[in-house]
Amino acid sequence: METRAAIAVEAGKPLEIHTVELDGPKEGEVLVELKATGICHTDEFTLSGADPEGIFPAILGHEGAGVVVDTGPGVTSLKAGDHVIPLYTPECRECAYCISGRTNLCQAIRETQGQGVMPDGTSRFRFSCTPPPSSEQSKKPDRNSRVRIGKDVIYHYMGTSTFSEYTVVPEIALAKVREDAPFDKICYIGCGVTTGIGAVINTAKVQPGDNVVVFGLGGIGLNVIQGARIVGANMIVGVDLNPARKEIAERFGMTHFVNPKEVEGDIVPYLVDLTNGGADHSFECIGNVEVMRQALECCHKGWGECTIIGVAGAGQEISTRPFQLVTGRVWRGTAFGGAKGRTDVPKIVDWYMDGKIEIDPLITHKMPLDDINKAFDLMHAGESIRSVVEY
Amino acid sequence: METRAAIAVEAGKPLEIHTVELDGPKEGEVLVELKATGICHTDEFTLSGADPEGIFPAILGHEGAGVVVDTGPGVTSLKAGDHVIPLYTPECRECAYCISGRTNLCQAIRETQGQGVMPDGTSRFRFSCTPPPSSEQSKKPDRNSRVRIGKDVIYHYMGTSTFSEYTVVPEIALAKVREDAPFDKICYIGCGVTTGIGAVINTAKVQPGDNVVVFGLGGIGLNVIQGARIVGANMIVGVDLNPARKEIAERFGMTHFVNPKEVEGDIVPYLVDLTNGGADHSFECIGNVEVMRQALECCHKGWGECTIIGVAGAGQEISTRPFQLVTGRVWRGTAFGGAKGRTDVPKIVDWYMDGKIEIDPLITHKMPLDDINKAFDLMHAGESIRSVVEY
Repeated sequence: METRAAIAVEAGKPLEIHTVELDGPKEGEVLVELKATGICHTDEFTLSGADPEGIFPAILGHEGAGVVVDTGPGVTSLKAGDHVIPLYTPECRECAYCISGRTNLCQAIRETQGQGVMPDGTSRFRFSCTPPPSSEQSKKPDRNSRVRIGKDVIYHYMGTSTFSEYTVVPEIALAKVREDAPFDKICYIGCGVTTGIGAVINTAKVQPGDNVVVFGLGGIGLNVIQGARIVGANMIVGVDLNPARKEIAERFGMTHFVNPKEVEGDIVPYLVDLTNGGADHSFECIGNVEVMRQALECCHKGWGECTIIGVAGAGQEISTRPFQLVTGRVWRGTAFGGAKGRTDVPKIVDWYMDGKIEIDPLITHKMPLDDINKAFDLMHAGESIRSVVEY
Repeated sequence: METRAAIAVEAGKPLEIHTVELDGPKEGEVLVELKATGICHTDEFTLSGADPEGIFPAILGHEGAGVVVDTGPGVTSLKAGDHVIPLYTPECRECAYCISGRTNLCQAIRETQGQGVMPDGTSRFRFSCTPPPSSEQSKKPDRNSRVRIGKDVIYHYMGTSTFSEYTVVPEIALAKVREDAPFDKICYIGCGVTTGIGAVINTAKVQPGDNVVVFGLGGIGLNVIQGARIVGANMIVGVDLNPARKEIAERFGMTHFVNPKEVEGDIVPYLVDLTNGGADHSFECIGNVEVMRQALECCHKGWGECTIIGVAGAGQEISTRPFQLVTGRVWRGTAFGGAKGRTDVPKIVDWYMDGKIEIDPLITHKMPLDDINKAFDLMHAGESIRSVVEY
């Protein structure tokens, strides 16, 4: 079949909209019609070329929601018409990681997912034989285009490839969710919401009364804040260079705002003082290794725990004196908020529908697929919290 | 009163044996007659000058056992004749740290302890007015000696100063132990035994069936090994450059020995392979920041935890890629094995007396106070696991 999709042709270039070929689902796979997708910093990270695992050409996108259209042989947990959220961290419930009870990092399809292909080692996406006449980009003279537009493979991305009207996803990488939840909001649960709230609940296990410091009030940090609010944190300190984030962060539960530009001297002792001895929990939601150090060192002596969420650039390292750890601080990290997607994502959809968490104010921009590059521009300008493409 | 003690006159010099003045216990303090003391790497660390908190002249020693001789006003939990182990990590049971339930790092007397004085800000130790005629060292011509031997203060060390026949210790820094336990063995519970076993039980919380990697098979590492054995670990891998440690480590529970000199290439993938995916728990018992990195990175993806026990040199830093943490590894540290001394040390003495843990084979050398400098020589030569001075 054919599907319209935004193609990451090569690193550092804008996405191009093309109609491409999509093969149907094979054994254990599911064809999904996407209804909406968020655009996340991780998509930008890969598109920029900073991601050492980045493969091109590929269909990016990992924050989607849609409806099952067809299922391949052996699929038992899903049927046509089911509402689903694709999971870049699958949950097979069978591998040693899934059954360990100690991690959400299912390894069942890790290797092929990292190579941009389905579990059988092939891609379902190919360029169409002829350039789609409806695509503006394809009308432009482009030397690469002539080579590209053929039988060439287009790679999957994070096992999800949600920047496409239709995508094929392994059954184990789809969370079935309730049918009354709006796609244009719950797509965000496919990454940012779950990553932020899950980091608080699953990974850090913040306790009622804890003092929390959140570095970076973007699409992840704001969800960390509402996660901290849900579990009954005491102080919820937000740290960001952008004062425009103060209002929305307060709405989500932030109790104190700190702009590092307005702090004289080192921000670490400032935060330790503000939190009466240090944070019980801190969260780094930026991907800056210097901030990761600050996030650790602002933790309370004896028990403060720093959880790293942000993704640093290739080859960058974090450092500290081991004394920071020997005196009781803990350095950890989290991916997808420690959430087991098929189990936890439906619950978070319920929380949204029950009004326990907010998503709507975080979706600051919506656009059609044709305008998807605007989402990256808004992100770079710091104007959006989350942009969503509706199909 | 007078007491014989080994004095750390200045950094990098051998200890000197002198008879010094010791004031009696003040409010909340206890006079202890020491019966034995171990000599630990931390004493060596301070004596060498590498410890930025080191103050001289001081009476070092923090691994002792003895008997209460006298108590100051307000002391209620101890009386003359009680057998005690001094605690460099006290347990006041009243400060915010003690009652937090999250740490053993009692802060009640942290500040004065770090300054080498008792809680009231003064020292109980002074040089005698005349050089003690019995001391060999004091007979040597020594310019410093003339200045020193006067009314000058000698500082306490870690609140314990066990390199003295008598010492004064705050009540909250004494664990009362059973009277049938031999001083020359249980003194070791004052630091090494508790630090190693406690790191496994209290800090890392190693679970039955876990695979454990221990870096450094010295006085701490061997106790980590027996701690891991007690809690039912599966593989217990010991890593040391000294093959002479293999036999004793196996006696204590080590199942696999790795000599980094005999491993081709990087030791990290070697250990990951050996442990079938990585250590569930690793322990750094050396104080080498490069080994601390290896200890983290050999941990199992998804959940492996590295606990740092060793004390690194001043200013040294640990580093890694944050990806190591984001993929589920945890970096933590421990001091005094996370043990609350007054509560946990008597239990560990019971374990020793019940044969649950071994101490005797670790005490490789014993000597009188006059020969205490030999203990440092044996340590430097890697010949001793633990030397003990008996008074």
